[in-house]
Amino acid sequence: MIFTYQRTVRFPDTDAAGVVYFANSLSICHEAYEESLRQSGINIKTFFTHPSVAFPIVHANVDFLRPMYCGDDLMISLIPQKISVDKFNIAYEITVNEVMVAKAMTRHVCIDVNSRSKQELPDEIIFWLETNRRDAEGAERRKSREEIM
Amino acid sequence: MIFTYQRTVRFPDTDAAGVVYFANSLSICHEAYEESLRQSGINIKTFFTHPSVAFPIVHANVDFLRPMYCGDDLMISLIPQKISVDKFNIAYEITVNEVMVAKAMTRHVCIDVNSRSKQELPDEIIFWLETNRRDAEGAERRKSREEIM
Amino acid sequence: MIFTYQRTVRFPDTDAAGVVYFANSLSICHEAYEESLRQSGINIKTFFTHPSVAFPIVHANVDFLRPMYCGDDLMISLIPQKISVDKFNIAYEITVNEVMVAKAMTRHVCIDVNSRSKQELPDEIIFWLETNRRDAEGAERRKSREEIM
Amino acid sequence: MIFTYQRTVRFPDTDAAGVVYFANSLSICHEAYEESLRQSGINIKTFFTHPSVAFPIVHANVDFLRPMYCGDDLMISLIPQKISVDKFNIAYEITVNEVMVAKAMTRHVCIDVNSRSKQELPDEIIFWLETNRRDAEGAERRKSREEIM
Repeated sequence: MIFTYQRTVRFPDTDAAGVVYFANSLSICHEAYEESLRQSGINIKTFFTHPSVAFPIVHANVDFLRPMYCGDDLMISLIPQKISVDKFNIAYEITVNEVMVAKAMTRHVCIDVNSRSKQELPDEIIFWLETNRRDAEGAERRKSREEIM
Repeated sequence: MIFTYQRTVRFPDTDAAGVVYFANSLSICHEAYEESLRQSGINIKTFFTHPSVAFPIVHANVDFLRPMYCGDDLMISLIPQKISVDKFNIAYEITVNEVMVAKAMTRHVCIDVNSRSKQELPDEIIFWLETNRRDAEGAERRKSREEIM
Repeated sequence: MIFTYQRTVRFPDTDAAGVVYFANSLSICHEAYEESLRQSGINIKTFFTHPSVAFPIVHANVDFLRPMYCGDDLMISLIPQKISVDKFNIAYEITVNEVMVAKAMTRHVCIDVNSRSKQELPDEIIFWLETNRRDAEGAERRKSREEIM
Repeated sequence: MIFTYQRTVRFPDTDAAGVVYFANSLSICHEAYEESLRQSGINIKTFFTHPSVAFPIVHANVDFLRPMYCGDDLMISLIPQKISVDKFNIAYEITVNEVMVAKAMTRHVCIDVNSRSKQELPDEIIFWLETNRRDAEGAERRKSREEIM
């Protein structure tokens, strides 16, 4: 199963155009990443509050297909992928009632917070990457089989 | 039962002090209000997206007892109270592991959006106020009985 | 002269009601506080980024008199006041074209960040409090004299 | 001259990692866009508050080169480019002390808000695009000449 995170659009997510403010949709994707880490057994407080090792975002992109409104129930799916010894990507898809409304991607680099120099991904992140990757590949294989039959 | 809303603290809620940014705690309370309206049968999209009748906040206050950290599981309880034909208050309490971390209050006035003049609270809000009020009073009575026994 | 901070309302400040989201008005007040500290000679980066001494907000309140729209030019005036050896308040008034649109207050407590125990206000904050207080009192005296004449 | 917008990093822009939260850097770019529209003579309130014609973002991307800290003075430069009769891009560069810290891009589509169907860019946007484009090209020509000499 691909990891998915359910999130209702709230009033503070919106702007005067009456829809989710574009940059807030990236924050909603980040929430999915946080929840995925938590379900992998990572302590979120330690991970995000003044850690010694961090995973800052060095690139992000997002495509908007349809507007999202206050009260919409979003499903955010997430597939992470290891890129190198010190980098990973996360691909996100946001759907409402099974219709895709946005796609996004973030790239993260592992750094030592004090020196801000790159360092190798630690074991807990390798474990999270492999577990989610395997789950995503399993889901894709099942989907292919269903399409063949 | 008093209405309660569960909410995990997310990274974008925090600031460089490593805790929830003070104004964001009011947004978290507002989310509880939105969820409470939804569970009362109100259409959230219609209610908050360019409505003809709105309930803007004319006063808010908040007291912080302890810091909230990324990953904390917040429980937000909410008790609304009708103040007059066109006004209501909402009292919020935020707890983490049953320890209170913040208390807040918002006051809302019912207005016609085009003229921005006050108008009487509509039926769906009266229903929401009465249901939540009765539930809160029931919870308090039960609590008093338990303390006597 | 009372310290004032000019700030244009931006699109991300707004919500689907088409006006500044209520909690964001407190963030705008906080910006005025930051600018006031900077003009007092305080290093903002050191002050707000993982400091050893911090001034968390323990209480905030705000009253909204009129809506604020995207593009509005806000003037935020700020008067701080020492409350005790380890506490101060800040009173804010937000005006648009000299018409008051909101009033707010924040209360700050000085703490040692590691122990989170209270400690005495440091010299640079005492200096900031006294300078702004004196400026505010001067402005009020001038205003009273003008009203008499 | 390329259009530039000055913006100090404020505390609410930051997260528990002590730097600007990644999605907030896109909001800061959007502020530069708003200021550029205003300086072109466009009424910002009308443009962004429940308009009949809007320019929603259909794509955004951002690269982060260095962290931004509370108190940093950002310079955001902006170059818009017409892509077709109903689309334009905006390229942003954020620098601190003349060192680039982030680059971003947003793509906007012109729509009729009620039908959400595409429509041709209106005159005031064409004027804004041409003025900023010409200014950017002039700046590049001057730079090229200086490099030759």
